[in-house]
Amino acid sequence: MANNIAKKVSWSGEGTPLLNGAEERGYSGQASGGSMFHIGRMSTVDLEEETINTEELDPVKLRPSEIPHNEKLLSLKYESLDYDNSENQLFLEEERRMSPMSFRCLEISRWFICGLIGLLTGLIACFIDVVVEYLAGKKYEAVKHYIDKFTEDGGLSVSLLLWAILNSTFVMVGAILVAFFEPIAAGSGIPQIKCYLNGVKIPRVVRLKTLLVKVCGVICSVAGGLAVGKEGPMIHSGAVVAAGVSQGRSTSLKKDFKIFEYFRRDTEKRDFVSAGAAAGVSAAFGAPVGGVLFSLEEGASFWNQMLTWRIFFASMISTFTLNFFMTIYKGKPGEFSNPGLINFGRFDSENVEYNLYEIPLFIVMGAIGGLLGALFNVLNYWLTIFRIRYLHRRCLQVMEAMLVAAVSAAVSFAMIYFSSDCQPLKKNSQEEYPLQLFCADGEYNAMATAFFNTPEKSVTSLFHSPPGTYNPLTLALFTLAYFLLAFWTYGLTVSAGVFIPSLLIGAAWGRLFGILLSLLFPSKNTIWADPGKYALMGAAAQLGGIVRMTLSLTVILVEATGNVTYGLPIMLVLMTAKIVGDYFIEGLYDVHIRLQSVPFLHSEAPATSHWLTAREVMSSPVTSFNKIEKVGTIVDVLSATSTNHNGFPVVVNSGTDNESGRLCGLILRSQLIVLLKHKVFVERMRSQQNRRRLQLKDFRDAYPRFPPIQSIHVSQDERECLMDLQEFMNPTPYTVPEETSLPRVFKLFRALGLRHLVVVDDVNRVIGLVTRKDLARYHMGKHGLEEMDLAHA
Amino acid sequence: MANNIAKKVSWSGEGTPLLNGAEERGYSGQASGGSMFHIGRMSTVDLEEETINTEELDPVKLRPSEIPHNEKLLSLKYESLDYDNSENQLFLEEERRMSPMSFRCLEISRWFICGLIGLLTGLIACFIDVVVEYLAGKKYEAVKHYIDKFTEDGGLSVSLLLWAILNSTFVMVGAILVAFFEPIAAGSGIPQIKCYLNGVKIPRVVRLKTLLVKVCGVICSVAGGLAVGKEGPMIHSGAVVAAGVSQGRSTSLKKDFKIFEYFRRDTEKRDFVSAGAAAGVSAAFGAPVGGVLFSLEEGASFWNQMLTWRIFFASMISTFTLNFFMTIYKGKPGEFSNPGLINFGRFDSENVEYNLYEIPLFIVMGAIGGLLGALFNVLNYWLTIFRIRYLHRRCLQVMEAMLVAAVSAAVSFAMIYFSSDCQPLKKNSQEEYPLQLFCADGEYNAMATAFFNTPEKSVTSLFHSPPGTYNPLTLALFTLAYFLLAFWTYGLTVSAGVFIPSLLIGAAWGRLFGILLSLLFPSKNTIWADPGKYALMGAAAQLGGIVRMTLSLTVILVEATGNVTYGLPIMLVLMTAKIVGDYFIEGLYDVHIRLQSVPFLHSEAPATSHWLTAREVMSSPVTSFNKIEKVGTIVDVLSATSTNHNGFPVVVNSGTDNESGRLCGLILRSQLIVLLKHKVFVERMRSQQNRRRLQLKDFRDAYPRFPPIQSIHVSQDERECLMDLQEFMNPTPYTVPEETSLPRVFKLFRALGLRHLVVVDDVNRVIGLVTRKDLARYHMGKHGLEEMDLAHA
Repeated sequence: MANNIAKKVSWSGEGTPLLNGAEERGYSGQASGGSMFHIGRMSTVDLEEETINTEELDPVKLRPSEIPHNEKLLSLKYESLDYDNSENQLFLEEERRMSPMSFRCLEISRWFICGLIGLLTGLIACFIDVVVEYLAGKKYEAVKHYIDKFTEDGGLSVSLLLWAILNSTFVMVGAILVAFFEPIAAGSGIPQIKCYLNGVKIPRVVRLKTLLVKVCGVICSVAGGLAVGKEGPMIHSGAVVAAGVSQGRSTSLKKDFKIFEYFRRDTEKRDFVSAGAAAGVSAAFGAPVGGVLFSLEEGASFWNQMLTWRIFFASMISTFTLNFFMTIYKGKPGEFSNPGLINFGRFDSENVEYNLYEIPLFIVMGAIGGLLGALFNVLNYWLTIFRIRYLHRRCLQVMEAMLVAAVSAAVSFAMIYFSSDCQPLKKNSQEEYPLQLFCADGEYNAMATAFFNTPEKSVTSLFHSPPGTYNPLTLALFTLAYFLLAFWTYGLTVSAGVFIPSLLIGAAWGRLFGILLSLLFPSKNTIWADPGKYALMGAAAQLGGIVRMTLSLTVILVEATGNVTYGLPIMLVLMTAKIVGDYFIEGLYDVHIRLQSVPFLHSEAPATSHWLTAREVMSSPVTSFNKIEKVGTIVDVLSATSTNHNGFPVVVNSGTDNESGRLCGLILRSQLIVLLKHKVFVERMRSQQNRRRLQLKDFRDAYPRFPPIQSIHVSQDERECLMDLQEFMNPTPYTVPEETSLPRVFKLFRALGLRHLVVVDDVNRVIGLVTRKDLARYHMGKHGLEEMDLAHA
Repeated sequence: MANNIAKKVSWSGEGTPLLNGAEERGYSGQASGGSMFHIGRMSTVDLEEETINTEELDPVKLRPSEIPHNEKLLSLKYESLDYDNSENQLFLEEERRMSPMSFRCLEISRWFICGLIGLLTGLIACFIDVVVEYLAGKKYEAVKHYIDKFTEDGGLSVSLLLWAILNSTFVMVGAILVAFFEPIAAGSGIPQIKCYLNGVKIPRVVRLKTLLVKVCGVICSVAGGLAVGKEGPMIHSGAVVAAGVSQGRSTSLKKDFKIFEYFRRDTEKRDFVSAGAAAGVSAAFGAPVGGVLFSLEEGASFWNQMLTWRIFFASMISTFTLNFFMTIYKGKPGEFSNPGLINFGRFDSENVEYNLYEIPLFIVMGAIGGLLGALFNVLNYWLTIFRIRYLHRRCLQVMEAMLVAAVSAAVSFAMIYFSSDCQPLKKNSQEEYPLQLFCADGEYNAMATAFFNTPEKSVTSLFHSPPGTYNPLTLALFTLAYFLLAFWTYGLTVSAGVFIPSLLIGAAWGRLFGILLSLLFPSKNTIWADPGKYALMGAAAQLGGIVRMTLSLTVILVEATGNVTYGLPIMLVLMTAKIVGDYFIEGLYDVHIRLQSVPFLHSEAPATSHWLTAREVMSSPVTSFNKIEKVGTIVDVLSATSTNHNGFPVVVNSGTDNESGRLCGLILRSQLIVLLKHKVFVERMRSQQNRRRLQLKDFRDAYPRFPPIQSIHVSQDERECLMDLQEFMNPTPYTVPEETSLPRVFKLFRALGLRHLVVVDDVNRVIGLVTRKDLARYHMGKHGLEEMDLAHA
């Protein structure tokens, strides 16, 4: 039972593991042969049974009630990205052939691609915004029409029904798209992009189809009135755009433009994906610097000046494009006042200033945000476990999404119905959708406005509406309702982000906090008077409490509010929220990453891990090849399911004794596959000279979807041939001595974005291999260093 | 002759080499024994003669007229920082003894220190600002009094004389301080901090005395009316504060607070210095994010999330402190409108918007800025060469500074005299110092204002004054005069920055550009109407053309203007300026770094360097020690001036044959010195057990000023003893095989901040050592890869 459940955890919360369903044909072959890790230490694992056996199989873990135990596992199904260039002879020859001018051309194409990434990401943001606004407007019109018509007849239930049906329909379309066409497009996509930037290859995450489903899905869920935002998905969209544009071809569309072939490797692609993610953040929040810092915070290990500069360029272009087209759309070209999808409005220091003695108050708000955020994460964690357990059928998922949509509508309606918070209708008011409902003429229902607005507008309204706009009770009820809706919504099989709901919840209780303050200390001075800044701090606290981002979030919020003097309080609030929240549970994205058992590498090794050395963490024994190896051996090793390695040290054996040979290179599974496919065999008749020499292009053409070993037919004759690996292996892999401490290994591994680190003894003989999972297994638990188990789930 | 000149290049442009003068006693011992580089390849170097001999001594280079040839050299006098921890047994034992709680305490102290750095940096900025403003006010009063008195009497020359004398006196005090007390405090300090963050140990750069001289010096030079700014020096000041605070002691004051002892090593110190530099930028420009990016751009190689976050904290605290105290000083507590020393004023997108078709214009301005910047740098380069050649006596330097001050006053006066740009005196005008001079009543002389204002205020005025405030001719003359004064001033023996003069020059011609545009196309539309945005772009272009910073400068300018929509044009302008400028000459700071022959590592290896391998770049042969080595041998090696290495591989010899042994560790000169000082010898009677075991504390106490080998007396008896290096050496140094390509070596070296990288053969025998200079020697010249020579100058 437990096994089933653990196996079925997948990104979207949908039940079918990504690698097992019929629709994953394109990938399954590769995946089954492609799990990169040595299981030397896991000799008891039985792959056929697909259970979560581990070396030290704990009987307790088999109890069905022990669902959360799978977070103590690291899945072996994820491969790593090859961020380290394989500097083999082919590569070096190509580099040496290139003139300074060609390097300059390459650099220019990198800039061009980044500009293109920014442009396309900005356009996608525009498209989403325009369509959502159009649909929301239509919906409002229809509902308003009915409400106006039936309010006096008492037939409100018809309006409610209409509203609920409209919302559910939208959401149904979105959920069907996601559940049946591309489950990886569910959610905000930020956890997946975090993993990708961290160096983990998440299947299907940067494909064109994912992008299409994501964009349509997010439009449907926002238009469907769910408690979601369209900002998170922009980050994913930007990343997909980047991965697509930079490769100069679409594997899905079977179209190869024959450009940018140089960039067809993981190193370059990951760099461009960072730029895409940054462009997405930039378009979402109008925060180009925040975007850059997001990419750096999540992805960077090695600081590359030119890369950062290009990322910044993509971000700038993205926010500029959005700004440019949105101002044209709104009929005010050239005003450039819409840098992002969400516009917090400017906080001018002259109007909304804060004082030194307010900082402790802000810190208290940060702590509240941390608590509420932890509560949100815990609830969502349980809900996700529940979903994994019982809601793994697609139709169930679609139905749940529709249910949430209907409940959202019903709750909103109920609150509007029972609230009597009437506010005078002001001229030039920010409310685009005032609903009179049961209010007197010339007034509008504030609660209705809060629910009918797009969440973005509600946030701005909470920040900037003058004191007295909102009734405290309205705010309290709204906070509660929206909190419950938001935690229920996150993890549904729809494309949607959690940024805006978090900001909205926080802004609501933050404003409430501000109002209560001014009620408690009415006469003190006028500095409490504006609850807008408390709304801002509350929003920061709540968002920080949920996602636990720090540096980039501060900058995003500072950029979005356009006021640098708010930097310090926002930073303090976010830090407090993170510290308080981390005491209970990690951030929402990390919870979901953990539920996926992704081998995520944090930026530093656990503090107390100096006890461990490379000898203890490495996997051994290692399957190695000789420089000149028999084809049959290679095919057998690659085909063996028990040794699904992805990188193989190449050694020179000094004698015939059993001891391992001296390291002279490292070759990847993908390279061997290409070699086998092109039958680069030696000593097989003399016709070999006629054969075209294998070029880097052949490797690039096969990238990134290398065929599985099973698809390559090697005849019995060919099995007897030899393969010369010398030209294709990386002759200078990084190595460490076996007594190197874990932090040192970790630093080297992370700084260079390695995939395999060879452990050698004092005469350079291979004794082990350190891979991502070997490092990711160690983490700081409540009681010091803890070790996770590895599993094929 | 050429030798003399090359030898005498030093940071301040003053003639005495840092290591030769009598006042460098404290350092000279260490330096003479401390140059870290192997000179295996430089067997012909004769250290006694102090000439610039190199292996391939070119006779052409000896011609006296060939001054600039020394920029093809790399000096061997600079040591590198040990950014890589030496994970020896002592270190590992300490780390392993520490509980998770102690790691948490360490982390908290890091945060505390960063807060303190921010606070102190902010206070220093306050102090400078207040004192400068006070002195400038006094000076204006005095001069205005005389001008008012004598204008009608025709005795203007008296006023001029008074003005010139006042200015010269201020500057004289500043110049004397710098020239006679701490020459390293000259200039902006940014090149030095760049080098430090790059990993080069610049002598005396982070000492308390340097800070004191820097602060007093900058006050004097700004008050003395030189064409300088006080922003650059803030970065240096922040760095010194950081280096001081983080060590918990002052070596100069001989005071040890016995705190923060854990941080007494290069790794931690360099991290704190990054925070200090960021805090300095933040205080100078009110740009905390810009500060972080400055530190990252200049210093970071390995991205460390927690470190970045702490740097950001220091920056925030710094700008907040400045803001807080300045608002109190100005009598408006709580308004927080002074985030930085320079305040550009807010560019509101509603008022000063730009349009798509203006972007090409901005790019043209960027090109102009690049050209003018290159001109500035070339002129300053020649001037610096001239100074090195003829102005190396201290009194000459002081006199030159005074001359510049007097000329600055005279030029200003002349321009005020001949200009008749009278502007009506407006109420609430930004001009704090209106001078009527020959204007009608109710008017003031615009040129006089431009010269009398602090440069910061002039910049703001150029950005924000309404159209028509400045006469085009005034602007043109002002640009010319200020350009000449600024290039003459930079490199004087005074503490002063180049940011503000650059901004001012650029703002002046930028505004002129805007005015000309509106004259050329008068009727087109109102978008040209405000020349303020052209002033901003001009300022960006000029500054970018001179200093060639990119990412951080964009963010600094965006933060200082408070408008994110200007981000893209500013970025494009800076990029254009950099591209155009780089075609002619590198950035001003880089010019000065090159003139110092500092082995500066850029962020990436030259593009076409795949031809080279570790075998070609490494230094060999390498002096190695055995695990248990005779004291006499160690003393001899350390004392030998011909092998002034700083790191020694420790090897195990398999046999008695002559071939080098297998690598088993790496030990630093500084560690050996401490070992010798504490006489950690074995096999010397049995009394050894009584001896206290050497602890990490002993190494920390000696840090950073390890005594020279000459100061350690080793008796003839002791020379026969043995020393066991095993406990103290780093047992897991990073290694590369000899066929590793240069870019790969470079990446490893830079990513981990290494000082020594051991090159080994296929059985782990030491065959060479790669150090900073070996990598810094290669750079892209006009004709492809070029190699620099190494010299002891």
